[in-house]
Amino acid sequence: MLKIGVLASGRGSNFQAMIDEGKADNLKVSIECLITDTPACYAIKRAEENGIPAFYINPDDYKTKDLYYHKIAYELKSSGVGLVLLAGFMRVVRKPLLDAYPMRIMNVHPSLLPAFRGLDAQKQALDFGVKVAGCTVHFVDEGVDTGPIIIQAAVSVIQGDNAESLSDRILKLEHKIYPYAVKLFSEGRLRVEGRTVVIKGGVDNNGFLTNPPV
Amino acid sequence: MLKIGVLASGRGSNFQAMIDEGKADNLKVSIECLITDTPACYAIKRAEENGIPAFYINPDDYKTKDLYYHKIAYELKSSGVGLVLLAGFMRVVRKPLLDAYPMRIMNVHPSLLPAFRGLDAQKQALDFGVKVAGCTVHFVDEGVDTGPIIIQAAVSVIQGDNAESLSDRILKLEHKIYPYAVKLFSEGRLRVEGRTVVIKGGVDNNGFLTNPPV
Repeated sequence: MLKIGVLASGRGSNFQAMIDEGKADNLKVSIECLITDTPACYAIKRAEENGIPAFYINPDDYKTKDLYYHKIAYELKSSGVGLVLLAGFMRVVRKPLLDAYPMRIMNVHPSLLPAFRGLDAQKQALDFGVKVAGCTVHFVDEGVDTGPIIIQAAVSVIQGDNAESLSDRILKLEHKIYPYAVKLFSEGRLRVEGRTVVIKGGVDNNGFLTNPPV
Repeated sequence: MLKIGVLASGRGSNFQAMIDEGKADNLKVSIECLITDTPACYAIKRAEENGIPAFYINPDDYKTKDLYYHKIAYELKSSGVGLVLLAGFMRVVRKPLLDAYPMRIMNVHPSLLPAFRGLDAQKQALDFGVKVAGCTVHFVDEGVDTGPIIIQAAVSVIQGDNAESLSDRILKLEHKIYPYAVKLFSEGRLRVEGRTVVIKGGVDNNGFLTNPPV
């Protein structure tokens, strides 16, 4: 069974989504550990409630950022983790961890990449005036939200949306497509060719590319 | 009834979509003229077949680009045109025409803007490896595909898509949302606030944000 490690800095709602999908038996994976850079984050509470070992690794304890990621890679490897999931981890992953898990680190981002990278993507989208928004699960590379795209889902922007209402709607989709992407990986169906993630047998996008209830 | 002028350089399939929607009585507008920069383009044939006056205006006949757009603005105004539609017009519209029709010029672009501006947007999207693509109807400003977004529609990228198959699928959506945007304009339901196009009464996005048949 695929062993997963999760990196989170905050509430970790996508971490919870993985836990729930695992319990619902939709996802045949084992979540081995949570690693966080934030001592009191809610994700730790979720880990404890679900008997998942949680490690707080303090960046300030390490001379360089690279050393910090060597340490994280060490802990993940020690736990036998085969796939790393970023779930609201508010740092840019650096080479030592990327090299330890090449195309084995996923992230979910609340926009239809390549549009609106970085922070406050939903607000960026509203400020730009888009009518279609969404979210993206991608493999992590050296850049910020630049890696090969595994799956995306779109939602309509509704008249009168604010950053919060749009974020809530997108988050519901994140909780659907992130576990789905992990499922595809766990079934060995993902192959990266250049920038393109080829999905063995294709992917049924129904339910992802849908309207929200208006 | 709203009088429309169309600018096209090529086959003008979106021009045809407007003609068809008008005939089907879904669109209460009158297409007053076609203006083209390309003498032998197929759009001219469509105009002739539908009794729409077609003007070939040769850029080489004008000392400056601005003069060229002054001439186009003159012809459109002479025809009483109230809304200008770009339908595969392969030039960047300049100030004289923009000033004559402020937020009265629309364009359709085969991507979910702000992603993949400019030429070969569908190929750009495939090369980037996106899983969701689409099209955008927007008001035209000084930039290339940068103006306020009126409506967008999304489609899934299907495993094995090439630029042609994806373009075909997106084009079907263009033919739906472009006339729809014109309809909203003709009903006085569009108001531009900064970068955001507010649609009076909101918009029913059903049918736009949908999956293609897989």
